[in-house]
Amino acid sequence: MGKKVAVLAVNPVNGFGLFQYLEAFFENGISYRVFAVADTKEIKTNSGITMFTDDVVANLKGHEDEYDALVFGCGDAVPVFAQYADKSYNQDMLAVIKAFGDKGKMMIGHCAAAMMFESAGITAGKTLAVHPLAKPAIQNGKTTDEKFAVDGHFYTAETENAIWMMMDKVIKALSE
Amino acid sequence: MGKKVAVLAVNPVNGFGLFQYLEAFFENGISYRVFAVADTKEIKTNSGITMFTDDVVANLKGHEDEYDALVFGCGDAVPVFAQYADKSYNQDMLAVIKAFGDKGKMMIGHCAAAMMFESAGITAGKTLAVHPLAKPAIQNGKTTDEKFAVDGHFYTAETENAIWMMMDKVIKALSE
Repeated sequence: MGKKVAVLAVNPVNGFGLFQYLEAFFENGISYRVFAVADTKEIKTNSGITMFTDDVVANLKGHEDEYDALVFGCGDAVPVFAQYADKSYNQDMLAVIKAFGDKGKMMIGHCAAAMMFESAGITAGKTLAVHPLAKPAIQNGKTTDEKFAVDGHFYTAETENAIWMMMDKVIKALSE
Repeated sequence: MGKKVAVLAVNPVNGFGLFQYLEAFFENGISYRVFAVADTKEIKTNSGITMFTDDVVANLKGHEDEYDALVFGCGDAVPVFAQYADKSYNQDMLAVIKAFGDKGKMMIGHCAAAMMFESAGITAGKTLAVHPLAKPAIQNGKTTDEKFAVDGHFYTAETENAIWMMMDKVIKALSE
């Protein structure tokens, strides 16, 4: 029985990373719904393309039980996250990540995903792959120099260039 | 001096393939413009996400000299191409591919890209990587069992899963 995945897309989002998950889910018959970490469903890719997600993160809050897994789709919104940390959509995002993590659901992501999981307080003792620049931010979790890490329900890749290395494991876990 | 790239996106387009090029171009400061192979700029990814391209292929026709390279962004429109081959956007696409090819510009693509280049009559003697199902369609060009091929100004990958293997060569050539 396939699982259902909630996908977070920051604004702007790295399209290469985001669509690597989405096309793989699509091709493997895995259900997914994409939520913009923004006030509107209209967001942009890093590369400047306008796209529409299915919904916004505010509408995922409180509905975590409807999903089995969360993907954090990283992007150029993250390096400036601190400036916008108090925005409701970013607060909702952290709340959603914490809820998924506390419920023991699959947590999937690349680049700064592990840092966001750490910020939400759900990474204690977990081994995580993360962008080299974000490594110092991981204190409760443990970082690895490997390109990706699978530890319990955490599936993390160093960057979007390494997602493919863990994708078969992600798809297998989502298909069980 | 960086070159300028025209990117064709069929409808629906494989977002993983398309954004692999776009994000790499963006990160390397290479100029690009995305053209929908459709009547409108609003298209979908295979995975069902609505996106907006910069323009439509009809407006690229006759403007080939403004670009140095063409990318064919493959997608699920291609398996049903024959049913819609007479649509003006598909005729424009083949005309644009032929014009870029005849002018000796860089031709880049994955999956069925080589088949489209072949259909446009520009592949004589060139070694091309192509989706295994499309191999028999390549008669003037030569197919390879390698995951990607670089032959003259042709840069082709077997599928979207192999684009990364040739990306450094694509970026280098576009950056010269």
